[in-house]
Amino acid sequence: MELKLALIQMSVTGDKTADLRRACEAVRKAGKVDMAVLPEMFCCPYDTACFREYGEAQGGTVYQTLAALAKERGIYLVGGTMPELDGGNVYNTCYVFDPEGNCIARHRKTHLFDIDVEGGQRFFESDTLSAGRDVTTFPTPWGTMGVCVCFDFRFPELSRLLALRGAQVIFVPAAFNMTTGPAHWELLFRQRAVDEQCFTVGCAPARDMNASYHSWGHSIICSPWGDVLHQCEEKETTLIAKLDMSLVPSIRRQLPLLSARRTDLYETREV
Amino acid sequence: MELKLALIQMSVTGDKTADLRRACEAVRKAGKVDMAVLPEMFCCPYDTACFREYGEAQGGTVYQTLAALAKERGIYLVGGTMPELDGGNVYNTCYVFDPEGNCIARHRKTHLFDIDVEGGQRFFESDTLSAGRDVTTFPTPWGTMGVCVCFDFRFPELSRLLALRGAQVIFVPAAFNMTTGPAHWELLFRQRAVDEQCFTVGCAPARDMNASYHSWGHSIICSPWGDVLHQCEEKETTLIAKLDMSLVPSIRRQLPLLSARRTDLYETREV
Repeated sequence: MELKLALIQMSVTGDKTADLRRACEAVRKAGKVDMAVLPEMFCCPYDTACFREYGEAQGGTVYQTLAALAKERGIYLVGGTMPELDGGNVYNTCYVFDPEGNCIARHRKTHLFDIDVEGGQRFFESDTLSAGRDVTTFPTPWGTMGVCVCFDFRFPELSRLLALRGAQVIFVPAAFNMTTGPAHWELLFRQRAVDEQCFTVGCAPARDMNASYHSWGHSIICSPWGDVLHQCEEKETTLIAKLDMSLVPSIRRQLPLLSARRTDLYETREV
Repeated sequence: MELKLALIQMSVTGDKTADLRRACEAVRKAGKVDMAVLPEMFCCPYDTACFREYGEAQGGTVYQTLAALAKERGIYLVGGTMPELDGGNVYNTCYVFDPEGNCIARHRKTHLFDIDVEGGQRFFESDTLSAGRDVTTFPTPWGTMGVCVCFDFRFPELSRLLALRGAQVIFVPAAFNMTTGPAHWELLFRQRAVDEQCFTVGCAPARDMNASYHSWGHSIICSPWGDVLHQCEEKETTLIAKLDMSLVPSIRRQLPLLSARRTDLYETREV
């Protein structure tokens, strides 16, 4: 069974209305696909100073526009992320819509990105964002899918819990930077795919050297064997790819990792 | 603080006495080091039919020879692995000796390697081996060290538990093959280093295309940032390297992953 994806590696200009419109246009231009994926903060600059200003409560304009887009195109839509306002808090939130335009999952970034690399990147999401508390999966005709956001993916427990819930693909709207991108992006998507024996899909904003945050780009799809099936460069582009979903059970049968876990000795569990 | 290592990527001929002697000679030839590491099954063919015949109870000839070697050289010795006989069972066991020749750790391979890749490798350790039940660390002047054996390293829970116990380096006597080696060896050592923010060290037998099992070789050392610091090819060789142990706390401070785990949401724990 094949799953045809469109990954929208788009530029984020800071004009929220225009960015939302360009996201929709890119999804329409992708043609007949089963599922489209938008990047992290696709209609908000990746800047802690902007999150509250660009944010909306669940059900706001961006949410409604994405729901309508999913329905119009008859596709599943992993709606990247946007700042979500809720009771004074701001979350970095991914909504997922089904082909009828229903929101079938909401993932609030669970691990906030605080980094201070010597001579490299400094960024503190926790200055302005609140953290979610979800392990998020959603059902599709191609099986259960998992979703997490960027820094979440660095924590092996979360990917493990997604796989144990049955995730066949882990979708990761993300925006690695020019320090962590070259060092860890491809490596991380490959090894999580090998560990969980599922496809991993990262969708990032295109790079804009005039923005305050420089996205690594390099939207990526890895197979359950850890091969890089597709990887973009840094420019704005749409990546269209078909996943052969039979690879997941095939790899899990040939190299039985998930079933060989010593759950009599250790356990990864939700608290 | 520097830790000077010697990784003995040696050929395994099937002549147990000669292989043990050659292991000792290679450690002596390495000169002044702090710690030496031998490969998985360094004095036994990697063949399920051989494990019982080549095996010894704890305290046997191989064990005594390694203990004496550690004491003679005044080094820590991660003694690769050998088949250990215990009450009718056979384990794939790594002994670790301190500079006084005391055995300070014993790790019995916890995950047995059963694989059946289409058009590739077929191997079933569980035909003849029993599985250990240890998460194994040992103390040194350079901090706590972790050790596991080959297939064990594929399970993120075990590496996580080693890091949570304080491992600054994870030592992995291992023998990946010509299917899993090119696909996953370097990737795995790099990503576990990134996830656990520690050094990872893999020591493999040299490749012998006349043996029944073809080792990938490629003994490797990765930094806590996921860089490959050193990697051998497939031939017999001794890799000498110094680890700057200050990198572990430095990386953990700059990109705080271990402390950013959401232990209020999930937990990796020993059962």
